[in-house]
Amino acid sequence: MNLFNKRPPNKDLVEIGGGGILDRRRFLLSGASFVTVMAASPILSATEAKAKPSYPNHMKIPGAPSSNYGLPSQYETAVKRTNESFYKSGIFTGAHTPLDRLNGTITPSGLHFSIHHNGIPDINPAAHEFLIHGFVNKPMKWSIETLLNYPIVSRIQFLECSGNSAANAVSSDPVDASCTSIHGQVSCSEWAGIPLKYLLDEVGVNPKGKWAMCEGADAGNHVRNVPLEKLYDDAIIALYQNGERIRPDQGYPMRLFVPGYEGNMNVKWLHRMEITDQPSQSKDEQSLYAEFTSDKKLNQFTFFMEVKSIITKPSGTQQLPDKGLYEIAGLAWSGRGRIEKVEVSADSGKTWVAAHLEGPVMSKSFTRFTIPWRWNGQGTILMSRATDEFGNVQPSRDEWKSRYEDFTFNHYNAINAWLVNPDGGVKNVYV
Amino acid sequence: MNLFNKRPPNKDLVEIGGGGILDRRRFLLSGASFVTVMAASPILSATEAKAKPSYPNHMKIPGAPSSNYGLPSQYETAVKRTNESFYKSGIFTGAHTPLDRLNGTITPSGLHFSIHHNGIPDINPAAHEFLIHGFVNKPMKWSIETLLNYPIVSRIQFLECSGNSAANAVSSDPVDASCTSIHGQVSCSEWAGIPLKYLLDEVGVNPKGKWAMCEGADAGNHVRNVPLEKLYDDAIIALYQNGERIRPDQGYPMRLFVPGYEGNMNVKWLHRMEITDQPSQSKDEQSLYAEFTSDKKLNQFTFFMEVKSIITKPSGTQQLPDKGLYEIAGLAWSGRGRIEKVEVSADSGKTWVAAHLEGPVMSKSFTRFTIPWRWNGQGTILMSRATDEFGNVQPSRDEWKSRYEDFTFNHYNAINAWLVNPDGGVKNVYV
Repeated sequence: MNLFNKRPPNKDLVEIGGGGILDRRRFLLSGASFVTVMAASPILSATEAKAKPSYPNHMKIPGAPSSNYGLPSQYETAVKRTNESFYKSGIFTGAHTPLDRLNGTITPSGLHFSIHHNGIPDINPAAHEFLIHGFVNKPMKWSIETLLNYPIVSRIQFLECSGNSAANAVSSDPVDASCTSIHGQVSCSEWAGIPLKYLLDEVGVNPKGKWAMCEGADAGNHVRNVPLEKLYDDAIIALYQNGERIRPDQGYPMRLFVPGYEGNMNVKWLHRMEITDQPSQSKDEQSLYAEFTSDKKLNQFTFFMEVKSIITKPSGTQQLPDKGLYEIAGLAWSGRGRIEKVEVSADSGKTWVAAHLEGPVMSKSFTRFTIPWRWNGQGTILMSRATDEFGNVQPSRDEWKSRYEDFTFNHYNAINAWLVNPDGGVKNVYV
Repeated sequence: MNLFNKRPPNKDLVEIGGGGILDRRRFLLSGASFVTVMAASPILSATEAKAKPSYPNHMKIPGAPSSNYGLPSQYETAVKRTNESFYKSGIFTGAHTPLDRLNGTITPSGLHFSIHHNGIPDINPAAHEFLIHGFVNKPMKWSIETLLNYPIVSRIQFLECSGNSAANAVSSDPVDASCTSIHGQVSCSEWAGIPLKYLLDEVGVNPKGKWAMCEGADAGNHVRNVPLEKLYDDAIIALYQNGERIRPDQGYPMRLFVPGYEGNMNVKWLHRMEITDQPSQSKDEQSLYAEFTSDKKLNQFTFFMEVKSIITKPSGTQQLPDKGLYEIAGLAWSGRGRIEKVEVSADSGKTWVAAHLEGPVMSKSFTRFTIPWRWNGQGTILMSRATDEFGNVQPSRDEWKSRYEDFTFNHYNAINAWLVNPDGGVKNVYV
């Protein structure tokens, strides 16, 4: 029994969608409680209310001193990135953001997802140089010290691996895994750095120049080609993430940041940019990051991470303690721009209701959505469907699959579904 | 010589303020370089341009694996909080945010400032309870597990110690210290938590209730009184900071967050809130956190941190390598709302020019401002003056001092000034 159910029915609680979706405004005014059966009743008896407050030992004995660099509580060690090896190489690894344990929209830098094709290089910034050459009037090479003198802009934006949610794209039976495991290759940070256009203006791009071949200084020799148009638009040389210098696993001492483009195009440990008239056919353009479409064609140079959303709470492998009141919460984003709306269904897709978007809603950034939900204890399916400012809507899984050859795993942005079983267990499913 | 000075004069560079303040829009279109004399010329000779790119060892040998929780580069250990002991007790300590080493607006949680009156308690969240009692219909006590089920809202907001910049308030001669040392008791994070109004609605506040006595579970027994009106307005029980659960030095497992109010009212390790009809005269209301005004009166219950700005670059103890082009950058904030404008002077206050505000400009949040500047190598004074959306403007130091008894150190928000010496050294001064 939920505490709420012990109270007289609250007339303000109004269902506006099937499966128990509630009107948020009236809900928040209702004084309804989110206290669940798992906790002892929080309402104090007359005796309890008169008792003196308790003063634990940590209120009697001085605590620890300040540190130079703070860390999470020792009680939060379970909130960590999960590391997965691809190809059983042990070197090509991915660290996933624990989306189901976080809140708000900023991903702490220590929990930002990362993928490395050949491990994380340890780069001394004093020895790192950045070269722009090729079809330019004046090739230039900058030190990090010099770059730190340039004008810096900042914005809060997401970054998503092109292969995020690949398990749902390729597995014929839905994997029974967590939101972190399936969808944790996406994160959001405040990125600060130098607009590429300033540097391109300095070298003077030759009219023939249309692309930039961007090379990272890692042992994976990662190379991606970015259209110059994007570099002149909103790309930056990212030097700072969430206030401080970017971390080694994010490309220290510098990375390319191309907002809304697939993660690996945001080349980490960037050390060279060659301006070319056409894109180079680097290994990374031909293997991992191109998609076979259903008409047997190879789709190269697919840039944008399209509109997408994930319900993070409740989500896969979580357990609802009992029927009662919950807040459904999740994240939505689009590589094209701002999120316009997120609709949620609690009745397996029969009805959809617009969720609350927690502001500020920023372009190419995480937007958190929430909606109150009264679970009646019966099995149902929860889904979310995001629409961006250009009217792009998440497709169904079938619709998405119909576009590609069966083994294709990049750019998966279909509507995700969580089955809530009568026992409260939550599972990844396809609808 | 600055590289820029080796080029033909750029007609687009237009001074719009004394002391070399430049028009930003025209500046950014000019292709001007921020390369300073400290770096070798970044323009490559014909021979250099033809040389093969170099491939350092870290491009040949696999790098490190992913970690569960990432940390900054080993080359960034100098970017840390500086710890200062007050009263020589060793327990009443303050850790300052290195504002002059960061960029953007988010403060990484590991570098958030913190002040502790008796150290940082180590609290097991499973044993922590939060009590609301006093003038309420139904006293209640919540576990952390229960609170984590409530609806969560998030916002990016600053937090500033009431005593930030105290050195400039009380020292008759300006201290020769860094921006971090003088002004580093202010930070900005995404805070997520439960609106207090939901909990107050649940306990049912008695009409007599006007204040809340808020007690932290630390050995300093920190107690501040907050008007209920503020708690119903925009206060939250903060459970998350920058995405993850708040850190021990920020009040783990929960703190009060009262946007725009002085830092210590955002009671950390919050465990008890007693609803009262008038504020209690706790030790913290009578000693540290009340101000004597110039008419010999004791000013208690002063809440708001007023409009303020700091130029972080260049700033105290930094060294400009040579005359030439620089970007002046800094942070502005107001406990009342949004920043409307920040004016910068590079000629000791004779002329003031509106700086660029890097968006999004959010209420009660850090706003970063920038403006390009051509330093001619002569001694001058740099200042910034912020105005908030309600027309509040930073006072001069003399004006601020005239309001208080000489020893008062809280709520210092006067215009700050950095002297640039002909040798490029930057010093804290009064004007």
